[in-house]
Amino acid sequence: MWQTQPVHIFNVDGSSLLNMKACTIHGPKSLEIEDRPIPKPDTNDLIIRLGAGGICGSDLHYYHEGGVGDFRLKKPFILGHEVAGEVVEVGSGVESLKLGQRVAVNPTRACLRCPECLSGRSNLCRDVFFYGSAARVPHVDGGFAEYFIATERQCIPIPETMDFRVAACAEPLAVTGHAAFRAGSLVGKRVLITGAGPIGVLLAATCRFSGATDVVLTDLLDEPLETAKKMGATETVNVSHVENALTKGSLKSAFDVAFEASGSLKALESCILVTRVGGKVVQVGSLPPGSSAAPLNKIMAKEIDLLGSFRFADEYRWAVDVLSRGWIDVTPMLTKTFPLSDAVQAFELASDRRRAMKVSLVTG
Amino acid sequence: MWQTQPVHIFNVDGSSLLNMKACTIHGPKSLEIEDRPIPKPDTNDLIIRLGAGGICGSDLHYYHEGGVGDFRLKKPFILGHEVAGEVVEVGSGVESLKLGQRVAVNPTRACLRCPECLSGRSNLCRDVFFYGSAARVPHVDGGFAEYFIATERQCIPIPETMDFRVAACAEPLAVTGHAAFRAGSLVGKRVLITGAGPIGVLLAATCRFSGATDVVLTDLLDEPLETAKKMGATETVNVSHVENALTKGSLKSAFDVAFEASGSLKALESCILVTRVGGKVVQVGSLPPGSSAAPLNKIMAKEIDLLGSFRFADEYRWAVDVLSRGWIDVTPMLTKTFPLSDAVQAFELASDRRRAMKVSLVTG
Amino acid sequence: MWQTQPVHIFNVDGSSLLNMKACTIHGPKSLEIEDRPIPKPDTNDLIIRLGAGGICGSDLHYYHEGGVGDFRLKKPFILGHEVAGEVVEVGSGVESLKLGQRVAVNPTRACLRCPECLSGRSNLCRDVFFYGSAARVPHVDGGFAEYFIATERQCIPIPETMDFRVAACAEPLAVTGHAAFRAGSLVGKRVLITGAGPIGVLLAATCRFSGATDVVLTDLLDEPLETAKKMGATETVNVSHVENALTKGSLKSAFDVAFEASGSLKALESCILVTRVGGKVVQVGSLPPGSSAAPLNKIMAKEIDLLGSFRFADEYRWAVDVLSRGWIDVTPMLTKTFPLSDAVQAFELASDRRRAMKVSLVTG
Amino acid sequence: MWQTQPVHIFNVDGSSLLNMKACTIHGPKSLEIEDRPIPKPDTNDLIIRLGAGGICGSDLHYYHEGGVGDFRLKKPFILGHEVAGEVVEVGSGVESLKLGQRVAVNPTRACLRCPECLSGRSNLCRDVFFYGSAARVPHVDGGFAEYFIATERQCIPIPETMDFRVAACAEPLAVTGHAAFRAGSLVGKRVLITGAGPIGVLLAATCRFSGATDVVLTDLLDEPLETAKKMGATETVNVSHVENALTKGSLKSAFDVAFEASGSLKALESCILVTRVGGKVVQVGSLPPGSSAAPLNKIMAKEIDLLGSFRFADEYRWAVDVLSRGWIDVTPMLTKTFPLSDAVQAFELASDRRRAMKVSLVTG
Repeated sequence: MWQTQPVHIFNVDGSSLLNMKACTIHGPKSLEIEDRPIPKPDTNDLIIRLGAGGICGSDLHYYHEGGVGDFRLKKPFILGHEVAGEVVEVGSGVESLKLGQRVAVNPTRACLRCPECLSGRSNLCRDVFFYGSAARVPHVDGGFAEYFIATERQCIPIPETMDFRVAACAEPLAVTGHAAFRAGSLVGKRVLITGAGPIGVLLAATCRFSGATDVVLTDLLDEPLETAKKMGATETVNVSHVENALTKGSLKSAFDVAFEASGSLKALESCILVTRVGGKVVQVGSLPPGSSAAPLNKIMAKEIDLLGSFRFADEYRWAVDVLSRGWIDVTPMLTKTFPLSDAVQAFELASDRRRAMKVSLVTG
Repeated sequence: MWQTQPVHIFNVDGSSLLNMKACTIHGPKSLEIEDRPIPKPDTNDLIIRLGAGGICGSDLHYYHEGGVGDFRLKKPFILGHEVAGEVVEVGSGVESLKLGQRVAVNPTRACLRCPECLSGRSNLCRDVFFYGSAARVPHVDGGFAEYFIATERQCIPIPETMDFRVAACAEPLAVTGHAAFRAGSLVGKRVLITGAGPIGVLLAATCRFSGATDVVLTDLLDEPLETAKKMGATETVNVSHVENALTKGSLKSAFDVAFEASGSLKALESCILVTRVGGKVVQVGSLPPGSSAAPLNKIMAKEIDLLGSFRFADEYRWAVDVLSRGWIDVTPMLTKTFPLSDAVQAFELASDRRRAMKVSLVTG
Repeated sequence: MWQTQPVHIFNVDGSSLLNMKACTIHGPKSLEIEDRPIPKPDTNDLIIRLGAGGICGSDLHYYHEGGVGDFRLKKPFILGHEVAGEVVEVGSGVESLKLGQRVAVNPTRACLRCPECLSGRSNLCRDVFFYGSAARVPHVDGGFAEYFIATERQCIPIPETMDFRVAACAEPLAVTGHAAFRAGSLVGKRVLITGAGPIGVLLAATCRFSGATDVVLTDLLDEPLETAKKMGATETVNVSHVENALTKGSLKSAFDVAFEASGSLKALESCILVTRVGGKVVQVGSLPPGSSAAPLNKIMAKEIDLLGSFRFADEYRWAVDVLSRGWIDVTPMLTKTFPLSDAVQAFELASDRRRAMKVSLVTG
Repeated sequence: MWQTQPVHIFNVDGSSLLNMKACTIHGPKSLEIEDRPIPKPDTNDLIIRLGAGGICGSDLHYYHEGGVGDFRLKKPFILGHEVAGEVVEVGSGVESLKLGQRVAVNPTRACLRCPECLSGRSNLCRDVFFYGSAARVPHVDGGFAEYFIATERQCIPIPETMDFRVAACAEPLAVTGHAAFRAGSLVGKRVLITGAGPIGVLLAATCRFSGATDVVLTDLLDEPLETAKKMGATETVNVSHVENALTKGSLKSAFDVAFEASGSLKALESCILVTRVGGKVVQVGSLPPGSSAAPLNKIMAKEIDLLGSFRFADEYRWAVDVLSRGWIDVTPMLTKTFPLSDAVQAFELASDRRRAMKVSLVTG
């Protein structure tokens, strides 16, 4: 029987038999691989052994600046929220998952009780626990560790043959699925995406998957735009090369929907200017905290919808599904893989947009 | 037969028999009452004798600054776009209107051929003629004149007994009807409106008419807030009186929808901050041209919809309907009435928000 | 202190000290007032003493036929789901309600865990308990008893001075609020409602509250149409009086939205025929079980949306709010009040549409 | 210059120099290839030489029954509304098209003035001319002729290398694009389609293009289901083979959206029964005229949206676009090609669902 040989993690008294390696952020440029006890799950929880974790832009913000947006690190915590792995311990209250099951793990543990959760917008949950985030105190540990805890609802089974690094991409893909959802139907739409980072290129794939016909991606660098082409962009524009890019060439004719995925105010301005009257601009990139300038009068005069997009809700399940079926192929964006113990090197590479798109960490 | 005694306006050769008085803007603080020939209509047009015209914020911008937003006066033109009057000349191609009919006149003559017009968004028409506006060159004359031209489609019949000053309010009421439409259903919603000018107070009436349960209006002056109470606001807040108004009292609990109707960036910031996560902010007031600062990161982090609202489409017909039925009462906002010949005095009074809400011009 | 003298309902061992009168259905025409022990609440529950209960169409179906739609009575149970009353026992886990509080009681206890509940559609909950219904086995007792159990979430406080019979109307008003929600914004819409029963006349009030401009109500009897006029219908038509009512007079010009609130297939046919192309028909009345005939080809050829509307979700809270504010006045529909002990007489009167609209039961 | 050698069709006096062959319906089973003068275009029109035309279900209804739905043939007229061809005569008022241009031709000439046209729903135009239809009298000739007239707006340019038979499929593809539009976003949705005729299989392709993840197609015959698999169905079910197909196997778990594309009431019943609570059913197939039976009570109890879908509007342009790009491949459904002169044989083959999916006519 498959359940006869579990990993022996805990003593009878519940104390941890084993330590694990964990990638912990202590402050700007202070990322350490520490030994920590394996966390003790509740009866409704599972323990997941990390298969692979993707390094995200917010991980890099913590690494370089000790914080992201309004959230500052107060105590060291484990980073990582794009993760997949294998079930190695199953709480007695868990019904649908068994030892050995490979899963993609949704980093969101929403309360499922607040008005937002009860209206289908759990991405706006008032009491959410989100892996690897300093948004709440005490901070919530993430998944860049040999083992981490998840609830049953967080774990979506994946096929036996699926690469964990691909499965880990379900998280950023869910972000883009949600952004696309915010824009309404994209069938036959002409779409602009500013910023060819991981979110931008996954957005290109998502928009194409959702029926968009023109998907134009802009960036200031050629290298990520090359990846964008492989991920579904029908056209790419290096806006640093093109003088007056907005007023000539392919950017001139108006877009139905623009996705701002770079976090740059200049890009947001472009989105507002090149979107058709009555069109939509979706802000999915993180803008600087505080007050920012944009041609807001055009929002009114062009009657634009400027729509914020924050994380994701049910789109995580969709993302795992399309990755499992192979309908969206993320392999062009997978740059390189490091063991957890080389996390610092991995973070350094991930910080170089010319050389890296998505860097993965795996268990040793 | 009623058509036997028309006003004799034109000679057989089509030249104008009569001159008319017209309220013409020549530049900042240069408003003149001129004698002009009555304009010659096409066979599908009508001539309307002005019953009453309301002075709007954009009229005041032309009066004080010689322009509004991005539009600057290049040649003198007749102001006025909130108008109602009586049909005094009927082109041979007109089918549904007769001499003597009292009408509210929609100042919009949309092309009805462009993609926007053909998708129900004629307020975004690419080739619109709008009364009393310098948006296109040559400028389009408005209705602050004894006579003006209108097409059949622009004229909506009103009851015999309806005050022309009330009928002229159909235009700003249509603006608020469109803003409410942009917000989606307001039934049971908690609504904030910033700015108690004519648009703000008509929005209060419109929101209540549309089923909003809480309608809170803010301004920096007490006098317009008094009018707001009479027009349907369930609560008013003078934000200049209240320290930290946003974080205590009635503004603290979150709003489902906020309408920014003041054109103030400070007010837009408040709207973004006090709207609930996942809520909507409708920008209906004109913001300054160029780049403006706002807490745009909150648009993303709170997943807000920031929705521009520009003019109106079919809402004009709705506005005439509800005013005709007496279901929205605008008399509390009607401040004072002047003859066309005293237009300068009227504009001066209209410029004083403490003393005036809506100032009307009448023929005679 | 007001909490020092609770009603003594239970012994220390939890057994009921008191019996209560309960209006129990045993089968067709077999309605009995029985003595039953007061039900024992859980720590998160409250006991409510009935203030007033309204007799609904489905109560009458149980009374006359021993079932409603697909649901047949298998064992006797207490009827009643339009109820309001006073808190007389508060479980230790209850936080927001105290002894003596007057409340309207939502008869729905949704699971708040299924996908429907988590997407804001708790009216479609997969595991709901609904007062006075044979939909699940064992049947769920209703509120036509001196005392009944409710959870904290079901109880919405009402003002001290509010008539319990009015508060009990929150339930059918919520049904109409949900039907209106299903139709989308009603502002400026021309609306038809077929059937002037309690749902039909409350729909008239709800549509007017939501901004509909024309609200035409039809029925086969004059008496309920008289009530409809008092509840907000702008026009009523007795379709049994008017030959070809659909093709002449006020029903001829097309409606934007039609609500079928009679359960009659003939009325549904009328709704489909008189709705404009591209319009909406909302089915809120219960149609006969099994297969029913209608001009379904018109659904396609006129591109109509035929929208089912089932019970209500958050609309219950809205209904209590507008009744508390007095913004919708239901007193014209309150026919007569009986003590619980005279329930049979009350049910008989309620069954006569010429003489009764809404009959109330109160604790003797 | 290529414009120096036009086809010489007309004399200087405007009379036709040439006759053309036209496929004309005279009554049930009476289809004739007649010689007719080439129709004379207005200055804003073009003459198109037929490249290919697809035989549609409504063509077959005229052929077999002398009518379709409520429309009966009163005088002979030319059939055909799925057409593409080459511009051979250009009116002086035409601006964007030149001689020799290959075009797909939208069979709809909407008035662009009625309220439906002006709200983006030109498919519901009150005064439409639609090729090959007896809906208005005199009937409107279609495109199964060597030459036919079109307005500029009807003609969408296609690439030089595109097969006319593929381009002609833009019409039924637009029908399915509109049906998908009616259902709202399909991204990640589980979809059922009943009926594997040309509309059903194109719907499968359209749903996949629009992001649907499961697309299950049912029919009573195996042959069309084979084509369905090639067109994008993720699963097919021959419901005549499977006992209780609805309650076991893949049809058991609920669908988000069901498209009824067979015109069968039995299939509509299945759609209503297997759609999840709160789901959508789109009726795109023609149901029998008059009253039809369906489990309408389930529409209410399951709170389903039953949405009619009639023809198409802007979706025609989308259809040409995706066919031109090769993003939807219709070649698996192209059965066989006949010259116009063999139209009767073509209609006979097209009537056999086991042997034919889409039969094309070309100019000999």
